[in-house]
Amino acid sequence: MIPNLNIVPFVSVDNMMKLVMRTGIERFLTELVAYIEEDFRRWELFDKTPRIGAHSEAGVIELMPTSDGTLYGFKYVNGHPYNTRTGRQTVTAFGVLADTASGYPTLITEMTILTALRTAATSAMAAKYLAPKGADTMAIIGNGAQSEFQALAFKAVLGIDKLRLYDLDPNATTKCARNLAGYGFEITECATPEEAVSGAHIITTVTADKKNATILTDNMVGAGVHINAVGGDCPGKTELHKDVVLRSEIFVEYPPQTWIEGEIQQLDRDHPINELWKVVSGQAEGRRDARQITLFDSVGFAIEDFSALRYLRDRLAGTGLFEELDLLADPDEPRDLFGMLLRSTKQDAKVA
Amino acid sequence: MIPNLNIVPFVSVDNMMKLVMRTGIERFLTELVAYIEEDFRRWELFDKTPRIGAHSEAGVIELMPTSDGTLYGFKYVNGHPYNTRTGRQTVTAFGVLADTASGYPTLITEMTILTALRTAATSAMAAKYLAPKGADTMAIIGNGAQSEFQALAFKAVLGIDKLRLYDLDPNATTKCARNLAGYGFEITECATPEEAVSGAHIITTVTADKKNATILTDNMVGAGVHINAVGGDCPGKTELHKDVVLRSEIFVEYPPQTWIEGEIQQLDRDHPINELWKVVSGQAEGRRDARQITLFDSVGFAIEDFSALRYLRDRLAGTGLFEELDLLADPDEPRDLFGMLLRSTKQDAKVA
Repeated sequence: MIPNLNIVPFVSVDNMMKLVMRTGIERFLTELVAYIEEDFRRWELFDKTPRIGAHSEAGVIELMPTSDGTLYGFKYVNGHPYNTRTGRQTVTAFGVLADTASGYPTLITEMTILTALRTAATSAMAAKYLAPKGADTMAIIGNGAQSEFQALAFKAVLGIDKLRLYDLDPNATTKCARNLAGYGFEITECATPEEAVSGAHIITTVTADKKNATILTDNMVGAGVHINAVGGDCPGKTELHKDVVLRSEIFVEYPPQTWIEGEIQQLDRDHPINELWKVVSGQAEGRRDARQITLFDSVGFAIEDFSALRYLRDRLAGTGLFEELDLLADPDEPRDLFGMLLRSTKQDAKVA
Repeated sequence: MIPNLNIVPFVSVDNMMKLVMRTGIERFLTELVAYIEEDFRRWELFDKTPRIGAHSEAGVIELMPTSDGTLYGFKYVNGHPYNTRTGRQTVTAFGVLADTASGYPTLITEMTILTALRTAATSAMAAKYLAPKGADTMAIIGNGAQSEFQALAFKAVLGIDKLRLYDLDPNATTKCARNLAGYGFEITECATPEEAVSGAHIITTVTADKKNATILTDNMVGAGVHINAVGGDCPGKTELHKDVVLRSEIFVEYPPQTWIEGEIQQLDRDHPINELWKVVSGQAEGRRDARQITLFDSVGFAIEDFSALRYLRDRLAGTGLFEELDLLADPDEPRDLFGMLLRSTKQDAKVA
């Protein structure tokens, strides 16, 4: 007898927050990096497809599926820049993990918080291979919803403990500094992006600009710096001046998607780029020397969500931090779906 | 103030059964037909894409998204022929409706039962335009999970009240006849498919065969019959002999998908076919005369699921037959996702 075939565990926002905080954010991020790294090493195994988007005037709704042959995962994610006007999030997400052997979903979860964590974990993983040796100082330009997650991932994975924060809105910077107090950072709130990048070994750009912006211009980026370009991520939405991109050694997740969404949408399609998975799996070099400028042109890819879903499933075990959804019809006799309906009436009548 | 932005209503299997039975299956099917018909009439408005499948040795997991510009819907559905060996369903499904203006999901629901209903409703809708006048007798070949839904949809919409049932497994036929007792049918349990089709105005094939099968051979199909071919639906999986298909006037949902999955995968790509939406919207003819053989080569399309989600949303209003899922992170200040996490710890500590 297989019990409860109708039930799928569901991780609510509330339970996700409990799980992350009880685990400890830095431990959560460090363990998540290990899962993402494992999946980048077996990159070739995965079903890969660019995200499937439904565009409207207000924004986009996307499905991001992938599979390693044993597990299947997908994320539903929206991007609606004007949502904040109605008190909503610009980006929300939820995800599903399933078993390819039966096709049955095995986990449904909020992914707004989990996506911020996986994005930060992916950035920190890339920086392990690309940041200059001995880096301890990071500029964060854009101090919105993702900034604290980026900071903590870089602290947990690379030991970054000096932050230089800048945002067009000083209130965002203050919020970020306040949230990170007590995590062991030396934090400098900066009045200009130029001040923020001064002395930084790593520059993280994570702004929410809606159009082509030039957060970083050429004169701001010195030799040896690693740029972690997280914002942008739409056709027509970039953060770096083209000259900065041209001076950098560029590393990307999935080229067919990054050419459309990333900083490299500004370049000719024959410009040389590197695939991060090849670096992680030892098939290509990361940073070659101390003076090189490296750029991780992050746009976010389905495999990272898959890793996050896989980690969540394992981390969840034994915690009880989930609810049980009665999602899958499970008649006593598989061919008797209608009979199940008929019998439910009798149940219903008894209860009423 | 907008309350409960984090909450998405969820319709469990149990609540779906209650909703269908309290509404009455025939009324549910009739109202659902009206929603599908409405969406077929505005077919050109929809974002259309063939389903996105992840194939493994054991089966397939598919995502079927579509949008009318205002609402967005998708269905997750698996097809795993060997699942019954472990007591699981061959096909299970769940679906999501969302608002394109905000990208926020507005409904999550079981769709195993709802899919059986929408498939039957679509078949009955097609038959309104294709079945011979005065039809009152239907053969159902394949008496599994979908057979009763088909029977009731044809009764509700076309007044079919005589059924001739056949299945390779006589127990399935007995189960189907027993489940339909009390719904006002005159039912004949048949020993052969030939016996079943004898005198039938409509032939519904809804078997679960895994390969090319010939449920209907040429000599079994007389002039004037309407064939409702529901089973099959995979590359390499058909139900009708090619000669039957060739003699029929063929009607399909979405040609790019039906050419791959439907009965017409047996034909040359230049064979003439008709799009059902053009018939429903008055741009093309359905049945032309009493002797014509018509074939609805049903494979199921995303727009039908969209109609079903839309109907469910409207039907659900005021019933309370749903749960509330805490699915979407909703920080007080949209840019302060991390602060929400921090504050949750304090909540958690208070509770513990």
